[in-house]
Order: sequence, then structure tokens, then C-alpha cells
Amino acid sequence: MSDRLPILGVTMGDASGAGPEITVKALNDPVVRGLCRPLVIGDAGVIRRAAQIVRSALPVRSIDLVTQAAFDPGTIEVLDLRNIDLGQLTYGQVNPMAGHAAYECVVKAVELALSRDFDAVVTSALHKEALNLAGHPFAGHTELLAHLCGVQRVAMMLVAGAFRVSHVSTHVSLREAIERVKSARIQEVARLTCSAVQRMGVAKARLAVAGLNPHAGEGGLFGHEEEIEIRPAIDALRGEGMDVAGPIPPDTVFFRMREGQYDAVVAMYHDQGHVPTKVLAFDRGVNVTLGLPIIRTSVDHGTVFGKAGKGTASPNSMIEALKLAAQMAARLTQGAR
Amino acid sequence: MSDRLPILGVTMGDASGAGPEITVKALNDPVVRGLCRPLVIGDAGVIRRAAQIVRSALPVRSIDLVTQAAFDPGTIEVLDLRNIDLGQLTYGQVNPMAGHAAYECVVKAVELALSRDFDAVVTSALHKEALNLAGHPFAGHTELLAHLCGVQRVAMMLVAGAFRVSHVSTHVSLREAIERVKSARIQEVARLTCSAVQRMGVAKARLAVAGLNPHAGEGGLFGHEEEIEIRPAIDALRGEGMDVAGPIPPDTVFFRMREGQYDAVVAMYHDQGHVPTKVLAFDRGVNVTLGLPIIRTSVDHGTVFGKAGKGTASPNSMIEALKLAAQMAARLTQGAR
Repeated sequence: MSDRLPILGVTMGDASGAGPEITVKALNDPVVRGLCRPLVIGDAGVIRRAAQIVRSALPVRSIDLVTQAAFDPGTIEVLDLRNIDLGQLTYGQVNPMAGHAAYECVVKAVELALSRDFDAVVTSALHKEALNLAGHPFAGHTELLAHLCGVQRVAMMLVAGAFRVSHVSTHVSLREAIERVKSARIQEVARLTCSAVQRMGVAKARLAVAGLNPHAGEGGLFGHEEEIEIRPAIDALRGEGMDVAGPIPPDTVFFRMREGQYDAVVAMYHDQGHVPTKVLAFDRGVNVTLGLPIIRTSVDHGTVFGKAGKGTASPNSMIEALKLAAQMAARLTQGAR
Repeated sequence: MSDRLPILGVTMGDASGAGPEITVKALNDPVVRGLCRPLVIGDAGVIRRAAQIVRSALPVRSIDLVTQAAFDPGTIEVLDLRNIDLGQLTYGQVNPMAGHAAYECVVKAVELALSRDFDAVVTSALHKEALNLAGHPFAGHTELLAHLCGVQRVAMMLVAGAFRVSHVSTHVSLREAIERVKSARIQEVARLTCSAVQRMGVAKARLAVAGLNPHAGEGGLFGHEEEIEIRPAIDALRGEGMDVAGPIPPDTVFFRMREGQYDAVVAMYHDQGHVPTKVLAFDRGVNVTLGLPIIRTSVDHGTVFGKAGKGTASPNSMIEALKLAAQMAARLTQGAR
């Protein structure tokens, strides 16, 4: 049975933060181990130290090639990139060495996912400043992953159980976000969303598209983007047979999803989707990148510098990210294996 | 004891909707009746019919002058404006007669609050279109109340227990909302918020001011309003001795308030505050108008046309609005009476 479980590459993230501890905690979860075959991509010394900090009983086994992985649920295996000098690492401090190591982990994980050695990639948090100091000028994971996979059209989805929100734009100012509310982009994100929701086990996704303005513009009284951009996008999507409601007033659409009316919401900007997800599920959210040729989920939090080395950071988001990646990969590979 | 309870004027709202039924249900709540002396402002025929629909056992007593009120908790008293012809009213249909009647109820309630016959006003939902068809061109309650009270500087707060959000702007497009993020207005709303939170029983309010942009601008990467407008406002408020945090990233500030770190958040626009409040407390939210010379709370929902006449609309928001008005009025009148 276990050799049919999906293989997940789990990146170490920024070693100055609590990511390694979070990963070790999550890989001690028996439910997680029953759903997937995880392989950490990182520095085995960092993972060993994290295991001591969180008092993990599982031995950490260092390997050099993915083919050496035994996937014994009683161990934590690390594809050892040997890219951290522990003597030069201080918890909670921005460190270009850690930024570069985290970058290398992502590169390796994507490479092995594209070659189908991994069924999915699950990422720990990067530190953007460390990444940039190391000479890798990416705004974050999503941009780096798109670059490595050679794709342009991606979207960020947050998932907390059956609460799923994808975003027309993310890390731009609110002014710029309004400019990005365009029919073509809304359609693109809605299609990616629909496809992702299907991979999450919903046969016929019921999508809702949020409005941009209060009350979804209230018939043009509070803005016109709903009529000019959003409604035409919804009409086009319905023409393709998709089940799409909207534009729904932003302050009711998320409540309705929570009540079970929709399987996912297309949000018009970062905070429209992030505010309700995080207020409902602060440490259980999962970040999923849509539009990549690989499956990628991630923790929905930062490097937790403040708890690094203390063993106190919550693994909940990582546990959910692993479960979701396993679920999405299992559905994808069911036919193929 | 009961003659020391605050007197609340409760407006009927739009009689084509479920407001009258909601009011009757709420006034059947013994907890509510133990906290205040309510007087409905409306049409007694409408309230009697609503009482039949919801099978209220309390007799409805019509009075013509506020001085005739007996405030017997075993009755529902209506200051009878006799402004609805039931024969011309259809549930769920926009009706100028109902719009005008609802308007008259608000005018009367404000008049009696300004004269201190009422300690607070609690309003049922208006239907904006009906109001406008009746020749009263107000965007909603807040604008009408400000007009009647002769004030300019008001702010809308949503309250759900200890979750309190006030708004720098409300019913304007998101583009316009960004333009209204100005230091002077943020300070004004923060001061009104602080004062309101004190009336709600928090001696030393801990406020948080949300950012406008994702990650509160992330040091200028995603917008500059945080540095140009929001931070100077916070500095000025701190200079007055207020306990103000911020600018806090929008997607974490509401979670932090939920965890108890803040007593209120100043949100930069309508949906920034409405989305988290409604997703957490859809039918228990209360709308409070800050900046009026009277206390005013309101249900946080519309006219519920779809449930009008069926007796099924939830009174939860009205119950919370009555409790909050009673609490705020009690604190205000404690010294005076």
C-alpha cells in the first residue's frame, strides 16, 4: 500500500526560522505519514538540530539521491543539499546563506517534481529579504515557482477545509489591484480555480466571483468594475458550462461559502481573500499555487523568526499543506499508477 | 429598578420586509426586556400583524404620546404613527408608502432622542429604493441620521461581541475609498472609536489601525498610503495618549483582535471591516453610528424581503442591537440619573 502513496518533496525553507522545526513536527504526525511518502529537501544538519529541539523520536536519515529514499515512516529522510553551515546560522536573523539554501531547496524540489520523481511539492516559508540578499530577486515563492516552471499565468489559492479562495492579484498595492480586475484575468483565475477544486475532490465545482466594490457596486452607485469587467467574465465562463455565481457582494460571499453554498470564491485582490481566510483559520490555512505543471502547496505563514529554535511554532498549517498535496496528487495519479 | 432601565426607541423599518416580525421576536426576549424599556416607533397595525405571524403572546398596545408609555414588559408598546395602509402593502415589494413610513419613524425617533425622551435609538432596516421613491434621497440610515442630527463627521462601526470595527469610509467605490484614506479622517474615526469603545465598557481602549495595502504596504513595496497617511495619523493619536497599534497588515489585524489583542480596529474601507465581521458573525452583528449626539445602534442586515410575512427571519442581530444600545445608554446615564 505505502508504495502507492504519493511522494511529496518538502522544502526546508529558511533555516533561520522555525520552518525546519515545523517540518519535523508535521512529519511526526501519523495521519500525515499514512497519506504520503515525504522526502525533505534541505540540509540534514539543520533538520537533525530541529529534531532535537522539538524532541522528535524519529531518526533523521541523510541521502544524496532521490532513488536512495526508503520512505520508512519511522524515519525522516532528507535529500541532503549540505548547504548550511550551522556555525554561521543565528535563529531569527536574516542570513543570505539561509536565503540561498532555501532557494536551492525550491530549485531541487521543482526539478524533481517536473521529472515526476515527486508527485507534489510542499514548501516551507522563505524569507524574502534573505532570498534577495542572496541574489535571488523574487517577490516570493509564487514568482520563483512560475519562473522555474516557465509559466506566466498562475494564481494563489488559500484553502482551509472547504473554504477556498483564489486571487485575481496578490502582492501589489490596492490601487494596482483595482487595475488588474480585468475580464480575461478573472476568467483565467476562475478556470484554474475550477480545475484545482476538482483535484480536491469536488466533481462539479460551484464557484462564486466576488465583486470589487461595496455591495458589488450596488448597480453602479459605488463603482463600475462589476459591470465592465466582472459580469462579462462570468457570462463567458457560464458559456463554457461552468457553475459560476456573481458578482456577489464581498461581505456576504465568504459567509455563504462557509455555509456551503460555494466550493470556491474568486477574490478580486489579496486582502479580500486573505482577511476572511485568516480570521477563520489563522494557523490552518494552506497556500496552493494554481497554473503550475506541478502540484504545489505551502504553509500559509512566514518564517516565524520569533519562535525559531524554541520548538513552539505550530505545525498545523504544514500538516494541512501535506494532507492537501497528498490528496491532490492521489487524485492526479490514480489513473496513471 | 425597571424605571432606571434605559428607554430605547425602536424603529419599525420598512414594513414590506421582515423588520416588524424581527422587532416583535426580539421584544419577546426576556433578556432584552430585563435590560431596557423599549418603545416601538411605527404603525401599530403593522406590528400587530407581525405579532400574529410570529405567534407572539404579548399584546400590542398603541399609544399616541411617549408620555403614555407604561413600559410593561408583558406588552409591546407602539408610538403609533398610523402611516401604513395594510391593504396597500405587499410583502417583499418595494413600496414608496413603506419607504415614507420608515422615514417618518426615524425622524420621530431622532427627535425623541435629541429631546432625551429616549436614551438611545435602535433601528430596523430601511429599503433604500423605497426611501428614494418616497422622495427621501439618502444613501442609507447613516446619512439620514447625520442630516437629522445636523452633524457631518460620523463613522460606521460594526460590533459582534468584543469584535469591533469602525470604517474610514463606507458606501463609496473602492477607488474612491483609497482617496479617502487621509490622516485627518483616520484620526477622527479613531477618536470616535475610542470614545465608543469606552461607552461599551472598556476603560482604556486598545485600538489597532489596519493598513490599506497587502502586508500594510511591506515597507513601500505595495503602496505608500501607510507611510504618507496612516502612520502620521497613528503618531498624532499616540501623542494624545491613545493606545494605538499599526498600521497592521489587514490579513492579521482581525485575527489578532479575535484573539483579544485589540478592543477595536479602524478599517480603511467598507469591505476590509465588513468581510471579517460578517464571516465571523453573519446574523449577530450590530451597526453603530459614531459621531451622533445620540446613541444609535442598528441591525446589520437588510429588509429581508425574501422572508417577509413568513415569521422565519432571525431576530439575533436586533437582539444584539438592543442589548448594545442598552449597555451604551446605561453607561452614559449612570452619572446623570
